[in-house]
Amino acid sequence: MLENGEHFFEGVEKLLEIWFEESPNNENDLRNISRSDWEKVLGNVNCEIISTSKNDNLLAFVLSESSMFVSKRRWILKTCGTTTPLKCLSLLLQLAAENGFDVVADLFYSRKNFTRPEVQITPHQGFTEEVTYLDSIFPNGRSYCLGSMNLECWYLYTFSRSDVKASPQLISVDEKDVDSEPDQTIEILMQDLDAETMSIFYKNKFASANEATKESGIDTILPTMHIDDFLFDPCGYSMNGINDKGEYMTIHITPENQFSYVSFETNVALSNYRKLINQVINTFKPGKFIVTIFANKCSLAYETMKELEVEYSKGSHWKRTDMQCCNFPSYNLLFAQYSHDEKNGDSL
Amino acid sequence: MLENGEHFFEGVEKLLEIWFEESPNNENDLRNISRSDWEKVLGNVNCEIISTSKNDNLLAFVLSESSMFVSKRRWILKTCGTTTPLKCLSLLLQLAAENGFDVVADLFYSRKNFTRPEVQITPHQGFTEEVTYLDSIFPNGRSYCLGSMNLECWYLYTFSRSDVKASPQLISVDEKDVDSEPDQTIEILMQDLDAETMSIFYKNKFASANEATKESGIDTILPTMHIDDFLFDPCGYSMNGINDKGEYMTIHITPENQFSYVSFETNVALSNYRKLINQVINTFKPGKFIVTIFANKCSLAYETMKELEVEYSKGSHWKRTDMQCCNFPSYNLLFAQYSHDEKNGDSL
Repeated sequence: MLENGEHFFEGVEKLLEIWFEESPNNENDLRNISRSDWEKVLGNVNCEIISTSKNDNLLAFVLSESSMFVSKRRWILKTCGTTTPLKCLSLLLQLAAENGFDVVADLFYSRKNFTRPEVQITPHQGFTEEVTYLDSIFPNGRSYCLGSMNLECWYLYTFSRSDVKASPQLISVDEKDVDSEPDQTIEILMQDLDAETMSIFYKNKFASANEATKESGIDTILPTMHIDDFLFDPCGYSMNGINDKGEYMTIHITPENQFSYVSFETNVALSNYRKLINQVINTFKPGKFIVTIFANKCSLAYETMKELEVEYSKGSHWKRTDMQCCNFPSYNLLFAQYSHDEKNGDSL
Repeated sequence: MLENGEHFFEGVEKLLEIWFEESPNNENDLRNISRSDWEKVLGNVNCEIISTSKNDNLLAFVLSESSMFVSKRRWILKTCGTTTPLKCLSLLLQLAAENGFDVVADLFYSRKNFTRPEVQITPHQGFTEEVTYLDSIFPNGRSYCLGSMNLECWYLYTFSRSDVKASPQLISVDEKDVDSEPDQTIEILMQDLDAETMSIFYKNKFASANEATKESGIDTILPTMHIDDFLFDPCGYSMNGINDKGEYMTIHITPENQFSYVSFETNVALSNYRKLINQVINTFKPGKFIVTIFANKCSLAYETMKELEVEYSKGSHWKRTDMQCCNFPSYNLLFAQYSHDEKNGDSL
């Protein structure tokens, strides 16, 4: 609720992902951090744990505002609303160090432009403020704005240890062994969604999250995922999916018509993401969406990003309004923005 | 001179390029605008005409602060210091309309981040202010920031009529005929330059610009160019080159060691720009530089940009610190930033 009594919820999430340097001691594991310590971390963020799920590779938390994923040396926190994820960084880094991880290999902080930036709490009242906060912890970080700064855009702050230590010869595209572990993340951030589809995510329509998951077809997007889903009262939906390969997916839905927002994120390794993107947009029927794909040099996605980059959406009613790619020392990034001209439900 | 008496000059230029829509009347020509009208235009910018040169295709002006190029339907203004190029836009558009060009096909406004932004005059006191000014004239323009916002970056505002009118099917990469005229522009913006090389561009060293042009090797960069050069008192250098194909090059040098800056720009059509880039950086020996390449879909450069994008600088001491590319409706843009780790004079 805004100060003037108007109902509003900022669905746009702040996404933090940190990879710690591989440790010589194989016992070291971020999953050794206790539940009460995670609760302290999330206290700084202003959100709470609603549900957890896990397998041999991954610990997944559904939060009161979005999700957290913890694996051996990678930590992901995605929170919406007016949460303050940057405020938990110093405690998180301290807990990681206590568990044997005292070197950050890669950090990514990203978000779409907020719908209502004026509602945010410091240090999230603007990207400049966020960058200043991050720069105080990661003095060699770099900040970027993809898309049109004066229209819609997506902000990224990234810190890479290889950017600091590597000699120029080491950061050649040919050296596939800069990162030995393939990694890729795709996010699809959707707005102006189909009202009928969004009505599924109201508690007065379905009593359980599981029914909403099935009715919407979310369970068919990546069928290997074990789903932990939650339907908020009176509306809103979150889900984490994890599979036996250690891959995850996560979906968060703000269904209110005036400010509808759905985010989809996964790190599944695919050689082509077009089919997945089409399935996601056909499931939620947005009026416009952003796609971001991160892939490191040894990821399958690395090559296929080129394809998506070149190919315009022929014969569909999606118009690509922006397309940018960035080469970072250990990752490539593709950013694309699409809007719908005429009718919903088309494929790319 | 700054308010505190410190000597400073902002070499970083503001670059405006406007293409007007092809007119059915073949008589229409921006070169019909009179010298006194150009003086009024430049009065709004706070600079003056120093010298002119021309051929059948192109009219070139050396200005007290950089350069202006006028051809049948294209206008380029590049000005450094504390000039205010955006302030001449309304008069320029009025004069163009009076000469038969009342539709802007493409507009590009770009600049590197200023060394001393606080010295600039409104509406150039920040990119946000510049965008607001441009948005008041071109309501469908888009603004971008390439490179690291918190370190060094390059700003671009672009307006394309095809972005406004085109249906999605029309803006396919396959359609080479969106622009029938091949066009490409490469800019190399250099800083931290070799002091000995910069000493050439002091009036106490060479009495004439022509001697400085020869001593530095500027005349060998693109030998087909007819050069109009100027050496400022006590230091500083500008040159325009034009050739019989209607191509241009322009170089501007701020040689003072504390804030040295050299810009190189040309629209010569080459299938590979690597040799040219190497010749330019070997001529001026910068400590760091930015390369930007714009190419429309029917330009030779369009394909070869891909090569430069992928290939890191192997076996050289140049480190590519940033690399981004953008797909716009009618142009592709490549942005790359390099810095020198050890010694000067290497090739990419």
